Amino acid sequence: MHTMRTPLLVARLLERGARLAPQEEIVTAFPSRLHRQTYADTRRRASQLAHALAGLGVRTGDRVGTLMWNNHRHQEAFYGVPSMGAVLHTLNLRLPPRELEYTIQHAEDRILLVDSDLLPLLVPLKDKLKTVEHIVVAADPADAPHGFPGTIDWEDRIADQPPRFDWPELDEYAPMGLCYTSGTTGNPKGVMYTHRSTYLHSMAQALTDAVGLSSTDTVLQVVPLFHVLGWGYPYTASMLGSKQILAHGHIEAEMMLDLIEREKVTFSAGVPTVWQSVRAAIEAQPGRWNLSSFKRINCGASAPAPSLIRWYWDHLGVEMIQTWGMTEINPLGVTSRRIAKRKHLTLSLDDQFANVAKTGLPIPGLELEIVDDAGTPLPHDGKTPGNLLIRGPWVCAEYYRLAESDSFKDGWLRTGDIARIDSEEYLIISDRSKDLIKSGGEWISSIDVENHILGMKGVAYAAVVAQPHPKWEERPVALVVRTPGATLTADDVVRHCAARFAKWQLPDEVLFVPELPLNSTGKLDKKTIRANLASSGYQLPTLR
Amino acid sequence: MHTMRTPLLVARLLERGARLAPQEEIVTAFPSRLHRQTYADTRRRASQLAHALAGLGVRTGDRVGTLMWNNHRHQEAFYGVPSMGAVLHTLNLRLPPRELEYTIQHAEDRILLVDSDLLPLLVPLKDKLKTVEHIVVAADPADAPHGFPGTIDWEDRIADQPPRFDWPELDEYAPMGLCYTSGTTGNPKGVMYTHRSTYLHSMAQALTDAVGLSSTDTVLQVVPLFHVLGWGYPYTASMLGSKQILAHGHIEAEMMLDLIEREKVTFSAGVPTVWQSVRAAIEAQPGRWNLSSFKRINCGASAPAPSLIRWYWDHLGVEMIQTWGMTEINPLGVTSRRIAKRKHLTLSLDDQFANVAKTGLPIPGLELEIVDDAGTPLPHDGKTPGNLLIRGPWVCAEYYRLAESDSFKDGWLRTGDIARIDSEEYLIISDRSKDLIKSGGEWISSIDVENHILGMKGVAYAAVVAQPHPKWEERPVALVVRTPGATLTADDVVRHCAARFAKWQLPDEVLFVPELPLNSTGKLDKKTIRANLASSGYQLPTLR
Repeated sequence: MHTMRTPLLVARLLERGARLAPQEEIVTAFPSRLHRQTYADTRRRASQLAHALAGLGVRTGDRVGTLMWNNHRHQEAFYGVPSMGAVLHTLNLRLPPRELEYTIQHAEDRILLVDSDLLPLLVPLKDKLKTVEHIVVAADPADAPHGFPGTIDWEDRIADQPPRFDWPELDEYAPMGLCYTSGTTGNPKGVMYTHRSTYLHSMAQALTDAVGLSSTDTVLQVVPLFHVLGWGYPYTASMLGSKQILAHGHIEAEMMLDLIEREKVTFSAGVPTVWQSVRAAIEAQPGRWNLSSFKRINCGASAPAPSLIRWYWDHLGVEMIQTWGMTEINPLGVTSRRIAKRKHLTLSLDDQFANVAKTGLPIPGLELEIVDDAGTPLPHDGKTPGNLLIRGPWVCAEYYRLAESDSFKDGWLRTGDIARIDSEEYLIISDRSKDLIKSGGEWISSIDVENHILGMKGVAYAAVVAQPHPKWEERPVALVVRTPGATLTADDVVRHCAARFAKWQLPDEVLFVPELPLNSTGKLDKKTIRANLASSGYQLPTLR
Repeated sequence: MHTMRTPLLVARLLERGARLAPQEEIVTAFPSRLHRQTYADTRRRASQLAHALAGLGVRTGDRVGTLMWNNHRHQEAFYGVPSMGAVLHTLNLRLPPRELEYTIQHAEDRILLVDSDLLPLLVPLKDKLKTVEHIVVAADPADAPHGFPGTIDWEDRIADQPPRFDWPELDEYAPMGLCYTSGTTGNPKGVMYTHRSTYLHSMAQALTDAVGLSSTDTVLQVVPLFHVLGWGYPYTASMLGSKQILAHGHIEAEMMLDLIEREKVTFSAGVPTVWQSVRAAIEAQPGRWNLSSFKRINCGASAPAPSLIRWYWDHLGVEMIQTWGMTEINPLGVTSRRIAKRKHLTLSLDDQFANVAKTGLPIPGLELEIVDDAGTPLPHDGKTPGNLLIRGPWVCAEYYRLAESDSFKDGWLRTGDIARIDSEEYLIISDRSKDLIKSGGEWISSIDVENHILGMKGVAYAAVVAQPHPKWEERPVALVVRTPGATLTADDVVRHCAARFAKWQLPDEVLFVPELPLNSTGKLDKKTIRANLASSGYQLPTLR
């Protein structure tokens, strides 16, 4: 043994932050008040939670489900549950009851930790959850009584527990977290993270060439903690001892801006629609917020429009880092920064932003490949599209308790994306393969058209989806939400698109709608949009 | 298997840099010319070297010694030798012949890679190296013929080799690099790095909270590559695809400054004496160099004087990051940055620099502890000194082929340092335990006195060492090198010290000397200074 075999355990990362920054704050914005506690408090309460769970019979490897918002108690579960050797299963509170039930049953959660205001979600499942032995309810004295019988009160149960837990020495490949990903078909699929995968993901995520997170940052956690473990930020920020701001419940753009100003937020992460609504709020009330502390955004889960990236830079001096990831990869895979290589230093601003429009470069530890349908690697020339494969030490190797899957082959994860890779390893994803529109044997990138429309004045949101077509197989249709007072027409939109796209790539129809549906992670819900179109929910005129 | 078991191999890091930054440069400053090659060239030549070595019989785990300066070929050996599964043993070219021989024999190097101008170092060992089967000589056509018979020419041997080597899938705990550390007594001791340790060290070193290295940096590699694998920078910079500048042969301050200006260097690392001489060169010729690209220095191996740290900030806007490390920890352990926590943002500049004067905070992955002589942990109160222990995934677990050592116990490395740790986990090392001066039962920190003297105008270098004393056991003596033209006296120095230190802590004597000896890593060679004092090499007057 030449070097120490110190296992890569998340408890070690979390203990580092708690020791280095004992007085740094984790702030939760509840609807009517701010709750502040320190890293030292969090460590103590996480230890007490672990003792309480051990007292309830939780053993190494057991799954503990959380049905919780972003708040200090959920953060304590992120700390205590994996550190004691159990598995943190974050339940997606936006799933329909049937899928929520499925994930609890499939994971065999023995305990559920539930925010009291989310208990109603469990009412329809009450007599169906065979594996759940206890429900621990997080409530404050000021909360309305929840009237849910037979539950355990979080605060009562931890109050007398010892303030330190002697975290066990686990195997670094031991499971620590479980998230389910909803596919287009079938049941949700479980991705089980290991201590090693989350540890290495945290190290890589904090790198300067990833998102450059530091102990001096203040992180506004907009991404739900149940969504791929909050994109990993609860662990990365806690490792560094960064200040963290959480928001319990739905968080609106104005509230985010209030928090950024008051808590001097430097960094946040979220899906493009969140940053579109923040932009809209700023444009509606220019000068209302002092956002001088705000420096960087990780914008991911779907590609932000280049015009949005540029707007944040030009108007706020905020760098929007485009990232791409998946539940299956913990989730960070690639990042795209304005200056990602030395030679970008001397580029014009326009050319720098042209780079950010590419999906990004693989962070250290991950490898990308594109292959044809026979599995043969394709050239990295920036032109040839292929099936995107990925591998590395924080990539999922199988779906949890799902014997067979086409997603894993020859040591690679098959992502389901169609992508190009250029000669400097920039990943360029135009669309998830299911979002590409196949018209007359040619592919149309719905994202490219969508982003181009989003660059128009008067457009708040836009979605481009495929409509079945008797002759061309599929044809694009655009759905647009106008900004208040805007008067642009379908012809304006088509003319704007015609300046960039070929005639056959233009949307056949442009529909103006009051709003667009989002899925549980805040992305445009194209499945629902397509279904609405098919059922004439959008009163679509006859296709040409 | 939940997540992929992708082993943490240095070849994966190196391949990343070569793929992402194929056209980025690795520049070598030879005495009379600059050699430029790209990462793509380096990858190709490293592959060819690996094929050549395989052809010479090198197999997995075999040691390949390098007796080389900092240059492109040494960098190729850093790439190719571990990637093919062999062990890179960097020979310290400043060791005396007996120790050089010892390290080659102890490591059982089968091949030596040698710069032609260093061949004379092998002449005295010629018939003694029983394990060495081949000597491969790195030379250029312009070099003088070396007249060393029976060697293999590097360029001849790699010329016809294939441009790609299919790097093997190794165990991540496989050895990849070997460095010997010279103790105060006995033979040098070998520290064997593993793929896992170097991989994780590279990730941690690049973190914003460590030295914040990025693909946009240009790294001037002043630290010899043979010194703890160049402090890890060849691997960290290559992982990121950063531009690298190497200097073959001795590098003087003026040459460093020329390179910083011409190659737009952003980052460098080195021992305090290097940065003192660079400062002296700038002060001797103010305004000669445009150093606007230069942003950060990693100053390590011994503690820089606070006045030096401050000078770089005030005069150049360069952040000098104090680091502490050891050969045994790959080497980075702790870093001290001007703003290392969020609360430092609002401190005055003076208070920020007071923090940098502390040794630093452990980088993610490492744990520190201080214990008394019985092994009991001591309080982290910033006051109580104790024996410093360290552990983590890139800490050495044993000396190579040395069965017994007091340095490893209960899973910790005993560093031999006396240190304090404060309530926020700042490590504060006043001295290596052997550099503390024990006077009348009390400890005097030679480094504290030294740094205080270094803050005086007219002082170029200073060393404070212990002299045996019949009554007090040991007493401090200061040796000072004046700057050209300075006229300060021994009384001036003692008076300056009296403003800060107690009477019994003041040096008994102040000797002005023309120069001070440095050891093979460029640090003050206190062993030689003490020996010179003992033999009256410094014409020390009778002690009081």
